Amino acid sequence: MRIALAQLNYHIGHFEANTLKIVDTAIKAQKLGADLTVFAEMAISGYPPRDFLEFEDFINRCEAQLDRIAEACYDIPIILGAPIRNTTQKGKPLFNAAVYLFQGKKQYFRKGLLPDYDVFDEYRYFEPADRFECLNFKGRKIALTVCEDLWNVEDHPLYVKQPMEELILEKPELIINIAASPFDYHQAEKREKVLRKNVEKYQLPLLYVNHVGAQTELLFDGGSMAMDRNGRIISRLHFFEEDLRIVDLDNDDAHPVDDLPGKIERIHDALVMGIRNYFEKLNFTKAVLGLSGGLDSAVTMVLASRALGSKNVHAVLMPSQFSSDHSVQDALDLAKNLGSPYQTIPIKELYIGFEKELSESFQGKTFDVTEENIQARIRGVLLMALSNKFGYILLNTSNKSEAAVGYGTLYGDMNGGLSVLGDVYKTEVFELARFINRDREIIPENTINKPPSAELHPDQKDSDSLPEYELLDRILHAYIEQRMGPEAIAKLGFDPQIVARVLRLVNLNEYKRYQSPPILRVSPKAFGMGRRLPIVARYLS
Amino acid sequence: MRIALAQLNYHIGHFEANTLKIVDTAIKAQKLGADLTVFAEMAISGYPPRDFLEFEDFINRCEAQLDRIAEACYDIPIILGAPIRNTTQKGKPLFNAAVYLFQGKKQYFRKGLLPDYDVFDEYRYFEPADRFECLNFKGRKIALTVCEDLWNVEDHPLYVKQPMEELILEKPELIINIAASPFDYHQAEKREKVLRKNVEKYQLPLLYVNHVGAQTELLFDGGSMAMDRNGRIISRLHFFEEDLRIVDLDNDDAHPVDDLPGKIERIHDALVMGIRNYFEKLNFTKAVLGLSGGLDSAVTMVLASRALGSKNVHAVLMPSQFSSDHSVQDALDLAKNLGSPYQTIPIKELYIGFEKELSESFQGKTFDVTEENIQARIRGVLLMALSNKFGYILLNTSNKSEAAVGYGTLYGDMNGGLSVLGDVYKTEVFELARFINRDREIIPENTINKPPSAELHPDQKDSDSLPEYELLDRILHAYIEQRMGPEAIAKLGFDPQIVARVLRLVNLNEYKRYQSPPILRVSPKAFGMGRRLPIVARYLS
Repeated sequence: MRIALAQLNYHIGHFEANTLKIVDTAIKAQKLGADLTVFAEMAISGYPPRDFLEFEDFINRCEAQLDRIAEACYDIPIILGAPIRNTTQKGKPLFNAAVYLFQGKKQYFRKGLLPDYDVFDEYRYFEPADRFECLNFKGRKIALTVCEDLWNVEDHPLYVKQPMEELILEKPELIINIAASPFDYHQAEKREKVLRKNVEKYQLPLLYVNHVGAQTELLFDGGSMAMDRNGRIISRLHFFEEDLRIVDLDNDDAHPVDDLPGKIERIHDALVMGIRNYFEKLNFTKAVLGLSGGLDSAVTMVLASRALGSKNVHAVLMPSQFSSDHSVQDALDLAKNLGSPYQTIPIKELYIGFEKELSESFQGKTFDVTEENIQARIRGVLLMALSNKFGYILLNTSNKSEAAVGYGTLYGDMNGGLSVLGDVYKTEVFELARFINRDREIIPENTINKPPSAELHPDQKDSDSLPEYELLDRILHAYIEQRMGPEAIAKLGFDPQIVARVLRLVNLNEYKRYQSPPILRVSPKAFGMGRRLPIVARYLS
Repeated sequence: MRIALAQLNYHIGHFEANTLKIVDTAIKAQKLGADLTVFAEMAISGYPPRDFLEFEDFINRCEAQLDRIAEACYDIPIILGAPIRNTTQKGKPLFNAAVYLFQGKKQYFRKGLLPDYDVFDEYRYFEPADRFECLNFKGRKIALTVCEDLWNVEDHPLYVKQPMEELILEKPELIINIAASPFDYHQAEKREKVLRKNVEKYQLPLLYVNHVGAQTELLFDGGSMAMDRNGRIISRLHFFEEDLRIVDLDNDDAHPVDDLPGKIERIHDALVMGIRNYFEKLNFTKAVLGLSGGLDSAVTMVLASRALGSKNVHAVLMPSQFSSDHSVQDALDLAKNLGSPYQTIPIKELYIGFEKELSESFQGKTFDVTEENIQARIRGVLLMALSNKFGYILLNTSNKSEAAVGYGTLYGDMNGGLSVLGDVYKTEVFELARFINRDREIIPENTINKPPSAELHPDQKDSDSLPEYELLDRILHAYIEQRMGPEAIAKLGFDPQIVARVLRLVNLNEYKRYQSPPILRVSPKAFGMGRRLPIVARYLS
């Protein structure tokens, strides 16, 4: 039996495009000799459609497209994911289902385990299924499951139910899992481990089909695969690209499978895809960003150039009286290295203008964070003016360490349509820069080696007001990714006072992050939709 | 049996304050002769603690405070809500529970129905209970339930389970429901109806204890009550205030209960409480806002004055060359009417400064939305400078109609720590203004009567680019609150082209609302945490 794994990049709500893509791929797979073509979870709508699922009209369109596909592929057996209605009069109005289409027949296989943590909200929309049965396909039984249904294999399982325990009673020959499983830098290993646990437990081969492509902050890396009953990966589809592969289950020789790339390379590739898809799906082609000569804007600029083409990334240098000469030079060097358009707009006169208009109000007051913020906000106004006038999307260049402790100006350097590095700690930004420069100097070495500074007052360095990033990032990781408390973090060997100060900064700055642009998610715990905290609270703050 | 209903304003994560308040109230209630004192759902932590529930340290603190209360109130029977651990090794790590405390004994009553829609995320944290039993209190059986456990009374119930069906088998004498049920302008009636359905179905009296006070965007109106077995409200606690009331179940004469105030009065009171609590809980006392002479900033200013005292609300007039004289005069009149401090900072010079710095880049380009946005952003920079320098919180003055269609400048007039009117449609803002002026002219009549205008280019009126608000708001309500599709809305009698244009604007501007300040929620469907939509999508857009 030859089964095609179709790993595609869908666009949420863009039914015409998704349908065309599914139909074309099914026809192509059939021509290549596939007996059955498998698409990802919720392929019909793209994932996650979020509250569009609450709109009757949206569900009607899902159903209409399903009919269109069924008609266009009448003689082609297809499995794909779609939301379907709960007709039982009890429970949530929808199920998340795998749908089997063939010759006018529609068969539904409902998801039983609904992820509702981090970025997932599935119980918001779907009723969990409580009965499971196999698909009969050409006389063979297939345990057809949807994503999380295979993930309940921990020692302390998150769900009381276990769909495979029921399905295995029918003695299937194969497990198929359709998924919408977003990227983080650990996900490929986690996924492989979880799938292998199922294979070993049930002694069955497994086919896994995931999404690829970015949906705002959520990045899907693909990595669809076929695993034989011994847990060997016999085929793995490309990461970060659409792919179509046919697996012959009656002749399941392993194909050579590439090693997984390292963490930093994965982050690099994920971010490039994230930028590219954000622009493509919004119908934009050009980006603008403020290039300071510092590390974060340099790395953002390189990633954007790789995503959009360097001619499409406009760099703006906006030196103030506090900017050092070397910063300006480093910024110019980078723009020239990349061959990107750039321009310089000094902010000194504008800053003096604000000083003048505010002089009466500020009489007798000393220079403080207010004046630092005014500089950052003037830059924000200039960048947004260029964005508005020329139809550029402004890229935000803040990193995760800054976002965590609130080291950034709301409506200033926190501006942007998309945050590229908001889920990358400063120490990881350094690693990204080294990775980018691994063959030749693209980012000026001076940008990488000088002490980080916001250059908002004379001789300022980040370390004046923050712990060194090596230390800071480890504390942040323990708190944000591992959700450890202050005492547990201190026990790792950190000064309890520094720990308390860092955690306080994180919690106090929830209000700033509330207004942050969407952040490309590369870690298991990114700021944004997967981390939900109250603003008005007093816990560790 | 005399039972005290304790309706308190908790502060999320502020365990010391919450514990003190609970203990003081329990002691006070006992002195007043109560046999039992009932506090709200999740009283220990405040509601909603959101992802703090994922922190082991946070749960430890909840447990420690529960022990402190048990000790301090050793001889006082208490019911209160708390997160408790799931010790069964399967399912989510916590339960949402009502806890009965008396003489060192702790008894748990776990919530079975977990709201996971709109602003609620309870399945993210909690395992639903699947068995229910009554509390035995002084020889009487009480069906002790947590909020949603009583709400599954629709014709198409949202949940498959029904906790009361199990509890009623024990023949309880009374239902107690502890809740964390946020305000919207329909909620008081909905709540009364749902509780009465239970009373009628099970022929039991019912005591209901809710939160009061604001937690960022979520406003809790209180409205705790006692209902006799005939569905008569025999006691209702104050709206928008802390309250403590003792109900004598063996002598349940009805006390006179006030009529519910009208929709606009409720919105008014909710917003005033929302502003006040936001400042109090963040330890701020003073607000700043831009006063344009228009309706939205006028209404915001009055509400803020009522919440914080008019001396604590700083108005800033920032006229441009496009501002009309009457606007400036209307703004001055309002500030004077209220006795609030105000100042004027013209933006013309700053605007010319930006024009100059951008002249080279903008050569050959005409005046467009870019220049309008620059004006709004200059105002944003000035307001934030005053906020930073003097420790004011900037109040955002955008209304829901504008927020819906993206009629506002990101990093300009969309700035603020808190959006006061972001869940109030323009037509409702008019009603609020009339309500404020019902006894005397506080808001200048001219502000109410003139055609709405952003005054960002000569003789601009909102109706140049938007449908009239009467029409716009009805289409928006059908789409946002009722989640109707374009065809269904057109069938209500609207031009399909206008409907398509409005819906397209709503969906295209998701990216702006993503970066909006938190919005005080007064409707059943507010922008913010309760409405979750993808940015990169192509549905009706």
